[in-house]
Amino acid sequence: MHVIADLAIIPLGIGLSLSKYVAACERVLTEAGLEPHLHANGTNVEGEWDTVFAALKRCHEVLHEMGAPRISTNLRVGTRTDRTQSMADKIASVESNLEA
Amino acid sequence: MHVIADLAIIPLGIGLSLSKYVAACERVLTEAGLEPHLHANGTNVEGEWDTVFAALKRCHEVLHEMGAPRISTNLRVGTRTDRTQSMADKIASVESNLEA
Amino acid sequence: MHVIADLAIIPLGIGLSLSKYVAACERVLTEAGLEPHLHANGTNVEGEWDTVFAALKRCHEVLHEMGAPRISTNLRVGTRTDRTQSMADKIASVESNLEA
Amino acid sequence: MHVIADLAIIPLGIGLSLSKYVAACERVLTEAGLEPHLHANGTNVEGEWDTVFAALKRCHEVLHEMGAPRISTNLRVGTRTDRTQSMADKIASVESNLEA
Repeated sequence: MHVIADLAIIPLGIGLSLSKYVAACERVLTEAGLEPHLHANGTNVEGEWDTVFAALKRCHEVLHEMGAPRISTNLRVGTRTDRTQSMADKIASVESNLEA
Repeated sequence: MHVIADLAIIPLGIGLSLSKYVAACERVLTEAGLEPHLHANGTNVEGEWDTVFAALKRCHEVLHEMGAPRISTNLRVGTRTDRTQSMADKIASVESNLEA
Repeated sequence: MHVIADLAIIPLGIGLSLSKYVAACERVLTEAGLEPHLHANGTNVEGEWDTVFAALKRCHEVLHEMGAPRISTNLRVGTRTDRTQSMADKIASVESNLEA
Repeated sequence: MHVIADLAIIPLGIGLSLSKYVAACERVLTEAGLEPHLHANGTNVEGEWDTVFAALKRCHEVLHEMGAPRISTNLRVGTRTDRTQSMADKIASVESNLEA
């Protein structure tokens, strides 16, 4: 089952600068063979369900190992069976409507 | 790794009444040995990471099998290593502050 | 426009105990004439759009005044024009499907 | 109060193709003087709190007028008082950690 997801991981108890932790999770995603697309409020990722969710679990583990005692993640998860659709397809579809 | 999560599963392409699908996911969670707590905008659940996420995957599979061609889920996921905390603990902690 | 919403407010930079801040936001919601329903991962609230969103803004302001230098909120927002529906209606609808 | 937000608006009851509706909300944001950044799972936007939230309300109104009987939005909202930070700053901060 292909999944398109968006992860926003917030480590708590480590002060106000979260970027080191977000970068660590980006590396985890990349090491899992995924191609994360960072944006200002999260990270887009797509792939097989088990690959994506194993990487998410690994992000939590790595951030705890880095010293974050508490983590709060917000996740958007999309699956569909009517057709295959990539993240690039989704963006292109909106943009073609914007140009219309 | 213990996780406290909140699932809001939205099936698309099946009209406006989502409750049959939400109920099906509740059953999946219960069959997984979890104790889901339904609220007006999602479902609270807690347990071992792998149990919770296997049940989430099963929810997507079951809803697709029921005929939902597209599913969009919003998920809040919390883990912590500083201490053990249950969902009941979280609520009790806020309520004790409200009474103060 | 009637809205059913779910607020999960996370203050950052104030340590690991968030309950004092969550309780302060509950008070803001109540003072706005709303009836917040706390759960383990957020707070359900319903009412007129402008009332709900003015209270959300007030929550951010109050938590900053309490000393939280950074706040990250996750919000689910539902509106519908086909019929009126309360939070209690949503829960009852799922529960009737669970009993079926 | 400056806010950085991420909107994911899901219209229900209009079939599986959401892009026309997402594009309409992008136009609303642009007409409000904001500079939305579309990604595969939502839209980044930043500005004054009242401007951003008035535009969000207008998105719900416009999508209902277009025929969507039900709308479910997921929103991430960030405010901070310790320093000014733009969306570009947030991304640059993570990327500098990735290069390190």
